[in-house]
Parts: sequence; structure tokens; C-alpha cells
Amino acid sequence: MKIEGTQTRSIWPTPDGSVEVIDQTKLPHRFATVRLSSMADAIHAINSMVVRGAPLIGATGAYGLAFSLRSDPSDEALDRAHDMLFETRPTAVNLRWSLDRVRDAVRNRPRGERAEAAWREAAAICNDDVETCRRIGEHGFALLRKMAKEKVGPLNILTHCNAGWLACVDWGTALAPIYMAHDRGIPVHVWVDETRPRNQGASLTAFELGSHGVDHSLVADNAGGHLMQRHEVDLAIVGADRVTRNGDVANKIGTYLKALAAKDNNVPFYVALPSSTIDWTLASGDMIPIEERDEKEVTTMTGRLPDGRVATIEIAPPGSSAANPGFDVTPARLVTGFITEAGICEANEPGLRSLFPKENKKQ
Amino acid sequence: MKIEGTQTRSIWPTPDGSVEVIDQTKLPHRFATVRLSSMADAIHAINSMVVRGAPLIGATGAYGLAFSLRSDPSDEALDRAHDMLFETRPTAVNLRWSLDRVRDAVRNRPRGERAEAAWREAAAICNDDVETCRRIGEHGFALLRKMAKEKVGPLNILTHCNAGWLACVDWGTALAPIYMAHDRGIPVHVWVDETRPRNQGASLTAFELGSHGVDHSLVADNAGGHLMQRHEVDLAIVGADRVTRNGDVANKIGTYLKALAAKDNNVPFYVALPSSTIDWTLASGDMIPIEERDEKEVTTMTGRLPDGRVATIEIAPPGSSAANPGFDVTPARLVTGFITEAGICEANEPGLRSLFPKENKKQ
Repeated sequence: MKIEGTQTRSIWPTPDGSVEVIDQTKLPHRFATVRLSSMADAIHAINSMVVRGAPLIGATGAYGLAFSLRSDPSDEALDRAHDMLFETRPTAVNLRWSLDRVRDAVRNRPRGERAEAAWREAAAICNDDVETCRRIGEHGFALLRKMAKEKVGPLNILTHCNAGWLACVDWGTALAPIYMAHDRGIPVHVWVDETRPRNQGASLTAFELGSHGVDHSLVADNAGGHLMQRHEVDLAIVGADRVTRNGDVANKIGTYLKALAAKDNNVPFYVALPSSTIDWTLASGDMIPIEERDEKEVTTMTGRLPDGRVATIEIAPPGSSAANPGFDVTPARLVTGFITEAGICEANEPGLRSLFPKENKKQ
Repeated sequence: MKIEGTQTRSIWPTPDGSVEVIDQTKLPHRFATVRLSSMADAIHAINSMVVRGAPLIGATGAYGLAFSLRSDPSDEALDRAHDMLFETRPTAVNLRWSLDRVRDAVRNRPRGERAEAAWREAAAICNDDVETCRRIGEHGFALLRKMAKEKVGPLNILTHCNAGWLACVDWGTALAPIYMAHDRGIPVHVWVDETRPRNQGASLTAFELGSHGVDHSLVADNAGGHLMQRHEVDLAIVGADRVTRNGDVANKIGTYLKALAAKDNNVPFYVALPSSTIDWTLASGDMIPIEERDEKEVTTMTGRLPDGRVATIEIAPPGSSAANPGFDVTPARLVTGFITEAGICEANEPGLRSLFPKENKKQ
């Protein structure tokens, strides 16, 4: 997608064999890039949240493994590097999948070719992610085009958290259909949930959309229900962290509340996801453990002071404690449909299996 | 209620004939009081949000009118002061009611007695508000006591925004039953919704509860639905800005989302209100105009820097705009009951009329 007119990905190779990423800890206050040239650089970028979003973490890990093979391409070093990179985010399904893919691609090669092969595989992982997101975008676009034909004025789409290209390599998941609609002349306006406590909506989604030129309005997380009651939301599209095989959706905390409001007001509520997000081993969402995160995310906020410096402030009374569940589970009954790289389906097991019949055989 | 062990109201007379109020613009970062000795002081306190909350604004206006009569007790000055004070917050029902009450109490008195009579009336308004809130507290307390008997461990109560004593003179509305339960030895724990964009939960409710010693946890507005799904909320109690005669509830933006989640999880959802909040002239909530507030409330946050100074930061990308509806309407069907000074009733017209039969005759 574009930043001020320049086509940009969230990670890209440089001519000298490094990769560059956008420093997402600086957004939306400053656009800065960071060059990664070693496995240590990749680990640091993941740990410090310079990169975030499951697909982008996977891509960064893949390049990290390629870097490590330049200095030591032995089997032992390959396994050690794989494990060190994986430990940066052990719950990230995409990261393991990317690291395994690179290791599998180089293991049976001569040592002298391994670094080069790993680099090509990391690039292929990035390109595959772009293609997956592009397909999600095309399927979602068909839906938006149909809805836009049936109304006068811009299509109002609500989204929660950031499921855009900054979390992936390009396009994004929930935002991919929106970018396509915008690029192809369908007028869209996006309601961007702030997404407390980490403010991914205000920091990243608003930045992405604004940089690409997509009309949007930031709203407090509290506002979405009211906007739906007053017919100011035509549909909602969110991403997903994990989808169980019955169609329950674990996503950023607060997603469930918007799904309830959508149901209560007959607003279509779609979840956009690559099939890698589907956890075929889990029967339902109540089996998903919900991470309890640091209370400081709730009691503090980071932003720009009037002089432009970035500062973190405390907003709670001294001594007040906070609770901070990171995700919630939206029951499948509240989801209108899934937008995947293979098409759109109902949010239930037959729906998912109709699009992904190979997975059908595994269970 | 208590602040660090000292019984405190939100407004109180001083021996020299002034009143003092808590400067609520400084909370929760600093506890400071402001002395009001003139009508101009009262107007400034309301305009600058040193005082907020409908009952407290009404009480402050009443004292402001009393001050004005000290310098000029003429009929003309009385009417002029009444109108000037009313213009500080023309949509506030309580403010008009308080100012009318003071004017009615002094109009037929000799000019020499007017200032003194107005002062007594303002004090009576404050005491009446305390008594109303105390009764709301007693009725709600009976409910909490019953629920506490049926469970092991503390009663977990979720609240949104600030409907505590800082918004009234003492006790509060939604928080009055909680203070009574705490004071009488029933273990309670309060989930405090942050309440973006103005953060009344983090700034005021957490401060009130903490200062009085009530166990509580601040949560992002996004968290309440998940907490209800995981059975961590026994009931919700919120306040109200306006209740229409069919039982629809206008309250701080986001209330509707919590009511939806409560319904979806069979969590009782109560609204605590003095009968002055009931708008008998409106048939339903969709007739309530919803105030659109300054977008800066969404794009900025105020808090303490590490050095203790209070600063305002910008959290959105430069150039991103925001929408900021101030209130939403929770349909009566989602409300378990109303807790009023006259008792608890169902959230519908027969319920309200059963408690307030005199109003029955007015319609």
C-alpha cells in the first residue's frame, strides 16, 4: 500500500542483502525504518515490537534465519537459530510455520548454498503472504462492490484493532477489501476503533488508511454500538488471531462487543482471515486461553507532547490496579461470514470445510 | 464518602460564608479544592468543569444565586443572575430545577432576607440530594446483600463512567449501593470501565473507590464483554443522563455495548437514577438528541508525566479526524431494573409509574 504516494511493504530487501522494516513503535508519530542485517537484529525487532502482526513476525523470523546461515550454515547452527528465533514469540503460529518452512527448504542442500536458499525462501514467504492477502481482498471487494451498488453515498465500514498491511507484508486482511474498493473508485469511509489499551486502531489503522488516502474517522471503542443504532455502519470487518473449527473467533479484546451490536442492529459482521489462522484442532472458542497482559497498558498512554516529543503518561489514580485481558472470543453465531483467500463462507464447520477440503481429511 | 479517612462531600460551606468544591479537573492526579465566594466563581467552576455531574452543577448554581443576592437582592438582579447561571449549561435539567427552586424560595421575601434565605435553600438542595442518593443506595444495597448471600467470594460489579459521589453531593447513584455494601461488610470488587474518551472511570470512579477503600480494577472499555463471558461479573450498575418514560436509558457512550453483553450472558444490568432524571415527556429513547462532542477528546489524552507534571498528548496520526458522540441509548429491553429513591422497578412505563404515581397524573 502507499505511504504518501510511495508504494511500500512492511518489510523489504535492500540491494546490499539486508532487509528494512518500518519501526512500528514510532507510529503514528514518526515514520522511521530500521535495517536488519543479522539474526540478532531480527530477534530485537520482534522482541521490541518494531515489527508486530503474526504474518510480519513470521516474515521477519524467516529473514533472521537466513542471516544466521551466512555466518554459520551448519546443521547445529540451523537448529539453534531456528529455536532462538522461535522463542521470541512462542505462541505465534505463523512464526513457527515460517521458520519450519525455511529450515525445510535448506536442510538437504550443501552448506555453501544454504544462506542463499534461505534468503529466497524468506522472500517467497513474503510474496505468498501478499498473494494470500490479495485474494482475501478480492473476495471481500466483491462483497463491498455489491453493497455499494445498493446504497447512495460512501460505504461505512467499521473495523477494530489493526488487521491491515502493517500487520502483514502488504494489503492486510480486514483492510485488504477496503484498499481495493478505494483504489477501484468505490467510495468508502472507515470507522476506526481506537482499540484500547494498546491503541492499534489510533496508532496503526488510522495511519495506514490516512497514508493511503482512505477516508476514515477515529472513534472511541465505546462509540460503535451507537453508530450502528443510528444506521451509520453498513458493515463491520475485523481480523482474527485464531478461529476454531466451529467458527468461533478469538480477536483483540472488544471485538465481541461490536459483534453483539452488529447482531442487534442487523449490520453484517465479517471476519477476514488467512486459512493459517484456523485452528482445526480446537472444537470451540471457550477452549482458547486468553492472555492477561501487563496492567500498565491500561494505566498509561503514549503520544506526542505539544513540542513533538513522544511521552508516556499515567492516566489512573496512583495505586489503582487494572486488569488487561488481551483477547476475547466472538461466538460464531454473531459472525455473518468469513472472508478467506479461498472465498467467503459461513462461520461454521461446514462452511470452513467447504473452502478447505484438504483440512477436512486431516481431522 | 471518605478521602483517605476524612468524610468529604463534593461541595461544602465554609465558616466565612463561601463554599468549597473539589477541583475535578485535577483528578486523579492531584486532590485540590477551590473556594467559591461569588456568582462569577460559581459560573467559572461550572464552565471550566471544576465541578461536573448534574446534581453537583445544580448545587453549585444554587450557591451561585445565593452569592449574587448578597450584592444585589433586587428582583431584576435575581432574574438576571438566574439566567446567567442557567446559561452555563442550558441542557442541564438539574441546574434549571435548582435555580428555580432558589428563586421561588426568595421571591416573596423582603430584600434584606433574600441572600440568607437563598443560602439556606442551596444548603437544603444539597441535603436533599444526599438523602435521595442515600435512598437509592439503600434500595440497591438490599439487592446486593441478597446477591452476596448466594455466592462465595466478593460480589463483582461492573460500572461505566462516573455515577458516584463526585457527580452528586455525596453517595452517588450507581456507586451508592456499592459504598453501603462496603461499609456494612459485604465484600465487593468493582470493574471500572475506563470510559473513553473523557476517562471518567479512570479519573473519577477509580479515584473515588480507591479513596474510600473499595476494591476495584480499572479495565479498558473493551474488556467488559469478555469478563461477563468468563463469569467474572455478577451484575452491572450504571447511572443515567436521561430516562424516557418507556424505560430507555441515555447514558455515557458505551453503556449500550455493556448492556448487550449483560443480556447475552444473563448478567443483571441495573440503572440507578434519581426520579429527576426521568423525562416523562419523551415516549422513547430514539427521540433523544445525541450531542456530538469535540474530536480532540478522542485524539488526545491527559495524564501524569514521569516527573509528576500533568500533560496532554496526541495519540492519533497528524491529520486523522475523529467522531465523538457523547451518549448512547440503551433500549429498555436490555435493562433488568431501575434503582431509584422510591425503590426498584422494572424498566418500563408501568414500572416507573408504580413508583412515581404523582407523575402519572401529570401526563
